Amino acid sequence: MIGLDPILDRLPTTIQRSAAGVAEFNREIIEATRDLVIGYKPNFAFYEALGAAGWEALAETRKAIPRELIALADAKRGDIGSTSELYAQAILDSLGFDAMTVSPYVGLEGLAPFLAREKKGVFVLGRTSNRDGSVQDLELSNGVPVYEQVADMATTWGDNVGLVIGATDLEAAATLRERHPNTPFLVPGIGVQGATVGDALRHAATADGRMAMVSASRSVIYASSESDFAEAARRRAEELLQEAYAVRV
Amino acid sequence: MIGLDPILDRLPTTIQRSAAGVAEFNREIIEATRDLVIGYKPNFAFYEALGAAGWEALAETRKAIPRELIALADAKRGDIGSTSELYAQAILDSLGFDAMTVSPYVGLEGLAPFLAREKKGVFVLGRTSNRDGSVQDLELSNGVPVYEQVADMATTWGDNVGLVIGATDLEAAATLRERHPNTPFLVPGIGVQGATVGDALRHAATADGRMAMVSASRSVIYASSESDFAEAARRRAEELLQEAYAVRV
Repeated sequence: MIGLDPILDRLPTTIQRSAAGVAEFNREIIEATRDLVIGYKPNFAFYEALGAAGWEALAETRKAIPRELIALADAKRGDIGSTSELYAQAILDSLGFDAMTVSPYVGLEGLAPFLAREKKGVFVLGRTSNRDGSVQDLELSNGVPVYEQVADMATTWGDNVGLVIGATDLEAAATLRERHPNTPFLVPGIGVQGATVGDALRHAATADGRMAMVSASRSVIYASSESDFAEAARRRAEELLQEAYAVRV
Repeated sequence: MIGLDPILDRLPTTIQRSAAGVAEFNREIIEATRDLVIGYKPNFAFYEALGAAGWEALAETRKAIPRELIALADAKRGDIGSTSELYAQAILDSLGFDAMTVSPYVGLEGLAPFLAREKKGVFVLGRTSNRDGSVQDLELSNGVPVYEQVADMATTWGDNVGLVIGATDLEAAATLRERHPNTPFLVPGIGVQGATVGDALRHAATADGRMAMVSASRSVIYASSESDFAEAARRRAEELLQEAYAVRV
């Protein structure tokens, strides 16, 4: 999965540094890589930083993601239930994303509107790729860290639940995979954040190499800052895919 | 503090049901109540539900909040640090909010970009007004609930830290106030969510009635669905203020 997280300053020299440029950049990345990936994951922060025009670029980016692939909104939302309903309308209904990330601090009540959309995937933050686990790693009275308990609870919240499990804590990823053999994991944290595809799959995928969507963002989309950026992104995505196949053999 | 959380279906009959109507509605509410409040708190979900035009309405709403009052963005953001930086740019720098709510699940590293803006207030979710505390109420190995540990940690993260403490768990509010006598609390959960201003202040404010910004949304902004909505909102805000003064005497 490719994270579409463009910053104006890092757009290729041939792309206009504007929200419209961002949408064009994403379209070209998608066109060049769509046969290599399971889907695309725009992180909302990068679009909100561009204001209302950024929101338009986000809507255009979603439309550019082919229907047969997963359009995953990395938004990490979560509020009281009645407010989360509005976020669900915005992201899953209006923008039409197939899945999104949500933050579990608000509990089941706060995530219910996302979960109620049964055909949409709801990826609950488990152990994220944040280096600092000051909250997630706290030890509970039953001896397990917060993230493990959150994962255990979240997987009972619906058939459409996945977990966000960063490849930056591989031990945690392996433990969670063992506890939740049938839960899809979204696995960020490779590339710029440090882990390799091999690390990620060996720890977060099932023994037969399934159920882990490994996501790379900056290392792919910024593979070149020149006019060949789309081909360069494709080459980088192919390399990552080769790494993935090497693990599965 | 008044929460500006408008839904198209509930706008007064005299206001256009559009993002432009939302901005107009907010402007009229602000004009009618600005001498009664410490500030305004738009929750981002209500604007994102309206797409790019909603983001414009949010920007206009922020501009309509007088400079001498607090413009608080209820956005509950939090991501890896480099991504949170983009959210901070969007909300605190570009839109120009004075303060915002953030979700602590990502830890200190994930909140650092918000905290680094030292003149901006960062309200970390402590015990929210969600009825369901399935994550926040988990007991840690040191015997305290997650929310208490989060509050204890967050208050060490900077001089610009506040806490979100819902008035729906008054015992938790009182405990946290005792532990953090000098920390500003943002206190939602009165009105439609069930608690009274008196409850909120008696438990979340200091003994001399300070440090708690009690926020009401639906009970104020929907006080009338007719053309007198702004005066009705003012009357309701005055009633809440009288309740607050009654506690302080």
